[in-house]
Amino acid sequence: MRSLEGPFRAIRNVAVTAAGLMLATYGTSAVAQQGGHGHAAGPLVLKEQGMFYVGGDIIHTDWANGPNGPPVFSKSADIAVNQMYVGFMIPQNQRGAPIILMHGGNLSGACYETTPDGRMGWYEYFARQGHAVYLPDQVTRARSGFNVTPYNEVAAGVRAPSELPNVFILGKDDSWQSFRFGPTPGAAFPDEQFPLKAIDELAKQTIPDQNPGQQLPPGPNLTPTRLAELGKKIGGAVLMGHSESGFYPEDAALADPSGLSGLVSMEAPTCKASTLSAAQIAKLAKIPTLVVFGDHIEDASKSSVVDWPAALADCQKYVDAINAAGGDATMLHLPDAGVRGNSHMLFQDKNNLQVADMVLSWVDQHVTAKPPHHN
Amino acid sequence: MRSLEGPFRAIRNVAVTAAGLMLATYGTSAVAQQGGHGHAAGPLVLKEQGMFYVGGDIIHTDWANGPNGPPVFSKSADIAVNQMYVGFMIPQNQRGAPIILMHGGNLSGACYETTPDGRMGWYEYFARQGHAVYLPDQVTRARSGFNVTPYNEVAAGVRAPSELPNVFILGKDDSWQSFRFGPTPGAAFPDEQFPLKAIDELAKQTIPDQNPGQQLPPGPNLTPTRLAELGKKIGGAVLMGHSESGFYPEDAALADPSGLSGLVSMEAPTCKASTLSAAQIAKLAKIPTLVVFGDHIEDASKSSVVDWPAALADCQKYVDAINAAGGDATMLHLPDAGVRGNSHMLFQDKNNLQVADMVLSWVDQHVTAKPPHHN
Repeated sequence: MRSLEGPFRAIRNVAVTAAGLMLATYGTSAVAQQGGHGHAAGPLVLKEQGMFYVGGDIIHTDWANGPNGPPVFSKSADIAVNQMYVGFMIPQNQRGAPIILMHGGNLSGACYETTPDGRMGWYEYFARQGHAVYLPDQVTRARSGFNVTPYNEVAAGVRAPSELPNVFILGKDDSWQSFRFGPTPGAAFPDEQFPLKAIDELAKQTIPDQNPGQQLPPGPNLTPTRLAELGKKIGGAVLMGHSESGFYPEDAALADPSGLSGLVSMEAPTCKASTLSAAQIAKLAKIPTLVVFGDHIEDASKSSVVDWPAALADCQKYVDAINAAGGDATMLHLPDAGVRGNSHMLFQDKNNLQVADMVLSWVDQHVTAKPPHHN
Repeated sequence: MRSLEGPFRAIRNVAVTAAGLMLATYGTSAVAQQGGHGHAAGPLVLKEQGMFYVGGDIIHTDWANGPNGPPVFSKSADIAVNQMYVGFMIPQNQRGAPIILMHGGNLSGACYETTPDGRMGWYEYFARQGHAVYLPDQVTRARSGFNVTPYNEVAAGVRAPSELPNVFILGKDDSWQSFRFGPTPGAAFPDEQFPLKAIDELAKQTIPDQNPGQQLPPGPNLTPTRLAELGKKIGGAVLMGHSESGFYPEDAALADPSGLSGLVSMEAPTCKASTLSAAQIAKLAKIPTLVVFGDHIEDASKSSVVDWPAALADCQKYVDAINAAGGDATMLHLPDAGVRGNSHMLFQDKNNLQVADMVLSWVDQHVTAKPPHHN
């Protein structure tokens, strides 16, 4: 295991530790940007922005429309499934590695755009720091769409209601306790960094989760595969995952590591330390890896849907295994680096740009940058 | 009815008609930008970008999770429903009115971002022309989420399968015929402007439509209401709708006109000309209105899900009614303005920036601009 604090005293967080009196070496600093609406740093200058889809299959279905749907729309049709939506911003003046920001459960790319209380999110901040940034929606969610066939089959009576794919929403109380806002719903930890006044805005970002892993019958989760394809399309990128997608970077690298230049696992419920083979560890050890956890791991509610102490321990075990195999893995447990009060939603917390600086500092030091060349 | 061609010979389309030899009066011209990847015009300079949600209700449900979902997630929970996601870009140098770009059926905001064949969409182009641009996903779709309750009720056996909300996808053949790509699937009109080589990319953008108007039991369609709220939040905006949302601008204005400074109805299947009361027409006549249709209305396949000649006739009747009531309504039927071959997806067609210039020219001449002040 590498030093906890060393890498995070570097370039980008100088401005943070010096309380805004000292400018960062390049670009704009987190402190300068956290005032006001987070846009004090001047214009955002982009070379390019837009969207594309990665992957996807054209299939035939007999149930593109339901039995009670408007008769004018065909039931028998060729439709696209399994595609992944990707938004992107490429700054005019690029430096550093391209970054893919993968969201977690019940969320979409929206969670990285603007914080629930209206501050700048990591999507824009990373672009302002010179990184090309890619913002997908998971396969089966939001702008990526999902396959309507099983729903209409159930409506038509040709599939049992019990075989309806599961769709779920994490309720406000589950979020409060599982995201470590405080010990019980409505009660916050004294140093809590999540902007709790905007809790209902987080609820609005919380949309149905239709991941196949949550479904009966379960199907394959195609998002890690699509992320590996996205990395190749870009020509090399740091892949960051969070929560449900916390270990997707490693899952993607196991599928195809060729487009992935760095793996960042944030707040993963598991790092599969006990289930990966030596060959898998050896494969993963070829890519620099950062694992990030916020604060209050031990204080988490017993009603949390994730066992946070077990998750941290499992991911520490994973970091140790990668390093034992000759890899370059770093555990960034924020309180150990002197940064306290962060929730599970550390990219939305009040100090989200301070945490961003720490992550980008790691990228600068551990990942060889290449310019993106997607098309 | 106003002149068909007059307003569209103005400033912005000078560059178009002069085949790129003459620069437009301000900003970058469509012709200059249509080369290459559509980004020949230099950097996109933004004052601000991001996202927020409009509206939404916190409700209690007993079915936030399904009967077969992971037991760790609560079934009884408080969740948000009825919210509308809105992405936005505000250029550094603003001019003209803010614009809301509302997508149509089976689509999301993605359809305005980048064309299926990778060219610049209206979202970026409008921002490059100085407009603050707002890009929502309809309520119940994409990043706006939807209410999982009825799905899980059916899975649990407490609601009849026949009462499952309808979800449908428009298949490739229906799109081909209804979007007027050609007379039959695979056969294109000789002057067709849609980039048909990228037809599968359009299929990937085509995601499940869960509009309450398509559901049994039908519920209210909240999108027009949210659009009216968005206009107020911005402090005045031109609201553009397309296809399924083609008449949402007028529906929104009937709900609350105070935030709407212009209404643009593109390719609406109906303009409700026969059902609106004189009082409703009088209310709508207070806001400048543009109605836009592409080419091949009379050539459309008999298998089209929309009767296009009837739609055009109904919207012409609506335009006439608004003008008879003292309003300022314009019908822009593109072939009548000398622009031929446009499909239903005119903002994705090969000449999409030419059409954009014509629409923006109308905005310049008919809408009083105000700076946005959303927060």
